[in-house]
Amino acid sequence: MSESKAPGSMSDLEIALKATLRPIEEIAAEAGIPPEALELYGRFKAKIDPAKLTPRPGKAPGKVVLVSAMSPTPAGEGKSTTTVGLADSLARAGHKVMIALREPSLGPVLGMKGGATGGGYSQVLPMDEINLHFTGDFHAITAANNALMALVDNHIFQGNELGIDPRRMTFKRVMDMNDRSLREVVIGLGGPVQGVPRQDGFDITVASEIMAVFCLARNLADLRERLGRITFGYRYDRSPVTVADLGIQGALALLLKDAIKPNLVQTIAGTPALVHGGPFANIAHGCNSLIATETARQLADIVVTEAGFGADLGAEKFMDIKARIGDVAPSAVVVVATIRALKMHGGVPREQLTEPNAEALAAGVENLRRHLHNVEKFGITPVVAINRFGSDSAAELDWLLDWCAREGVQAAVADVWGRGGGGDGGDELAAKVAAAVASPSSFRHLYPLELSVEGKIRTIAQEIYGADGVEFSVPAQRRLADIRRNGWAGLPVCMAKTQYSFTDDATVLGAPKGFTIHVRDLIPKTGAGFIVALTGAVMTMPGLPKEPAAMRMDVDADGNAVGLF
Amino acid sequence: MSESKAPGSMSDLEIALKATLRPIEEIAAEAGIPPEALELYGRFKAKIDPAKLTPRPGKAPGKVVLVSAMSPTPAGEGKSTTTVGLADSLARAGHKVMIALREPSLGPVLGMKGGATGGGYSQVLPMDEINLHFTGDFHAITAANNALMALVDNHIFQGNELGIDPRRMTFKRVMDMNDRSLREVVIGLGGPVQGVPRQDGFDITVASEIMAVFCLARNLADLRERLGRITFGYRYDRSPVTVADLGIQGALALLLKDAIKPNLVQTIAGTPALVHGGPFANIAHGCNSLIATETARQLADIVVTEAGFGADLGAEKFMDIKARIGDVAPSAVVVVATIRALKMHGGVPREQLTEPNAEALAAGVENLRRHLHNVEKFGITPVVAINRFGSDSAAELDWLLDWCAREGVQAAVADVWGRGGGGDGGDELAAKVAAAVASPSSFRHLYPLELSVEGKIRTIAQEIYGADGVEFSVPAQRRLADIRRNGWAGLPVCMAKTQYSFTDDATVLGAPKGFTIHVRDLIPKTGAGFIVALTGAVMTMPGLPKEPAAMRMDVDADGNAVGLF
Repeated sequence: MSESKAPGSMSDLEIALKATLRPIEEIAAEAGIPPEALELYGRFKAKIDPAKLTPRPGKAPGKVVLVSAMSPTPAGEGKSTTTVGLADSLARAGHKVMIALREPSLGPVLGMKGGATGGGYSQVLPMDEINLHFTGDFHAITAANNALMALVDNHIFQGNELGIDPRRMTFKRVMDMNDRSLREVVIGLGGPVQGVPRQDGFDITVASEIMAVFCLARNLADLRERLGRITFGYRYDRSPVTVADLGIQGALALLLKDAIKPNLVQTIAGTPALVHGGPFANIAHGCNSLIATETARQLADIVVTEAGFGADLGAEKFMDIKARIGDVAPSAVVVVATIRALKMHGGVPREQLTEPNAEALAAGVENLRRHLHNVEKFGITPVVAINRFGSDSAAELDWLLDWCAREGVQAAVADVWGRGGGGDGGDELAAKVAAAVASPSSFRHLYPLELSVEGKIRTIAQEIYGADGVEFSVPAQRRLADIRRNGWAGLPVCMAKTQYSFTDDATVLGAPKGFTIHVRDLIPKTGAGFIVALTGAVMTMPGLPKEPAAMRMDVDADGNAVGLF
Repeated sequence: MSESKAPGSMSDLEIALKATLRPIEEIAAEAGIPPEALELYGRFKAKIDPAKLTPRPGKAPGKVVLVSAMSPTPAGEGKSTTTVGLADSLARAGHKVMIALREPSLGPVLGMKGGATGGGYSQVLPMDEINLHFTGDFHAITAANNALMALVDNHIFQGNELGIDPRRMTFKRVMDMNDRSLREVVIGLGGPVQGVPRQDGFDITVASEIMAVFCLARNLADLRERLGRITFGYRYDRSPVTVADLGIQGALALLLKDAIKPNLVQTIAGTPALVHGGPFANIAHGCNSLIATETARQLADIVVTEAGFGADLGAEKFMDIKARIGDVAPSAVVVVATIRALKMHGGVPREQLTEPNAEALAAGVENLRRHLHNVEKFGITPVVAINRFGSDSAAELDWLLDWCAREGVQAAVADVWGRGGGGDGGDELAAKVAAAVASPSSFRHLYPLELSVEGKIRTIAQEIYGADGVEFSVPAQRRLADIRRNGWAGLPVCMAKTQYSFTDDATVLGAPKGFTIHVRDLIPKTGAGFIVALTGAVMTMPGLPKEPAAMRMDVDADGNAVGLF
């Protein structure tokens, strides 16, 4: 996060380590979680068993506030920070609130990415532990994924009764690591006793379909079912072969039986947060587990959650994938905007984003306008959160507030990074969001499931991105036929597109018109229950930079993290 | 474990699930662990921060009882079961006792191996969780190992400033999985942006040098130091290159900062047990973490611990590696013997081991005799634990007790599997062990560190195995020269030899004479601080059988494990 300003030179980690944490039992008790539903992981983390919660007497499930964003700059616009700060401000205003957030992935933490736990005075804690192993959920998902592939390759080695074609495997092993060297590998070398050689590769754990399944399951039994439906490859006769065909969905569910319980932590201000699951936002749907969101609804009146990337991707998938499976339709959508991002979309090069530029602002706001209109297409009134950066001038902020007022959109400047939602940094935003939550909304999905996969993709491209049309590559057309033949056409679509543009070209900023979306391939994720549409190269195993963050990391003699952001 | 008899047809898992567990805080309080040193992981597991323990006033550190065994049958002779049962019986007799055990590896659990948590009525609990992810220690070790290799390959990719020779890498990636297909792989394929191609392979996590380092470190600072000393490969100029050369020992230690705290659990009888770490017993030293053993000594009067394989391997390494680094010299060594194993060493084929055979017993007891003499070479008086199986006749057991009496060796029949140490199954054994602990011993290492590596290997082979001599292959001789040149000759030796025979040929049973040990290669483990001497093929990545145990595993709707053993 680059909002760095108010707290002088203190890093996120320094702010986090200075915060006084309360015992997680206290946070749980205030949140209405009975002790028998709580499984402690150290002093400040706990898992919650949703089966041991009882509905609050006389209370409806909480309303969902989805935090999304305009098309972001590469540095990100501060969605997690806004999510945390907004929740803190809502709590400060007396609302019973709970946060639902994604868990960070370890690989990028060792590379260069900031944490995914918010920033400044709007963080979930203990940020060092959440950013490292946390409660081991991602390790359990890694183990389940790799157990599946070990069992598949063993099946082939032991005689291949199912007739699995080793050249048509669609599932890979994973590691929660940025490890470029594992992108393309050959395995099973060494002769007849070491396996059957085949071309393969590793993805990062968050790209595993098991992560997506984990985040869309309603409970353990549903998780087991969905694991069984995963297609990991094809037989020599081209028919799909699933985990249930191997009969190991029970073993995989067993490996996930504790991980599937949501993790409770607290913000710097003491607001309860469920941090659980974290699928990729391109080849998956990019939001925390459905179980966490539904559990939070059981416990609080307002649940603040986020979805990855901009609203064209994260919010659309939240509405059309997650909110079809679970009862989590948002009552309000917050669209995070920054002066920096508006200027970038107005054509300003990255190194000049801190300089005032009224024309660029006016041009770039068209990107925000399209996202706001998109939110309305789902029947929800958006609220703009202007995430304040140190370089923003009062004139720029006022201009944007005026623009929103002219457009009839609720908006507020939020300084939750510098002042914290526990301070007064998000009071105005919280008031506007609370009003939006209280006013009626009429949620609807963008498309019906009965529409063909092609039709679903065209609808998203035209209605949300503003494209003229969609072009399907020859392989994609062939895959569409496979999808129909295999009976998967009723699944929703998960678009894998760059987050930087409404188009499939990351360099086309603003609110472009007259463009075509190119679908180069389709990947059926039958366990997660969606069809991924690839509109460009998607990196599913990141690499490390020349100076990885790991070089700065250390631990002091008392066991405290050093150099973690 | 195949002791199955008394409790009818109940499996280890069924017995474990019927046991009533007490909250781990209660177990901790009784063990003298203050609440501030305790970090709960659910209701029945906790990590202990050794830095927050204070020495017991007026009490010396507890005495160590090492449980070892005669050369085992492939089914194992029940060392873990005896360790747990003996400790329960010592507790029943009023001693303040604590167990220190290895953590099980997930890979073999999914394959075919029974758990490593004891059996019958002598188990540590919750056995299902301990056998699955437990508190995530092995996942943290996997992550640290693979972070190291991702950073190494990234260093090569980014320009290779250190001049690392990709053909002379001695460190591999790991996975806690039985995955035959990963034994030999080629990584870094896909062209210039995907890495530098090289031949590679994966080991199972317990074979990682980081696991050995983890188990020999005295504290977090020592762990960090030892991680820095790991040699992961060689430069083009043939000089060794270490983790400290890359400057990432801090990041690796950070990844292990919580894992390094020992895990507290309880036995069925409620005896406290520290279950922590679990290195291979061939290419590593095969016992739980030094931190766990030393922590247990701080808390109890008697610490019962075990070492992998037979006494020729596990006990020798305990004495010559672990007890050189930490203050854990045993006051007594229990040698587990079974009627089955004695008959096998007397030449009876595996399928006839349940039939009486007095001659074979008399012949096979020579194997036990050599192990007992070996224990005495370390200045310690052994106690024989006869682990009773359902097929043992009273005549056979009496014969063995008589033999021990004639040899002047303390011995007792233990039925800790069927009756439990919490019952009366181990009372006599406990009494004899307590007497041995109370009597004076004069511990000594087998060899001084000043001896050459060659000399150390010859000493072990001749003194412990009973070999005439040692033959070094040409590569091993070259490696001996490298070791001298690199200044590693002062390290102790870690023998990698079959556990089934005193020789390096698994089929030569009993107490053979007139044989030669063949050292085919030497692997310096400069982080762990020993030189591995390979005397045969060592499998560092197991495979799965045709019908993996995973096929039977499941989880019920309440989240309980099903089919786990």
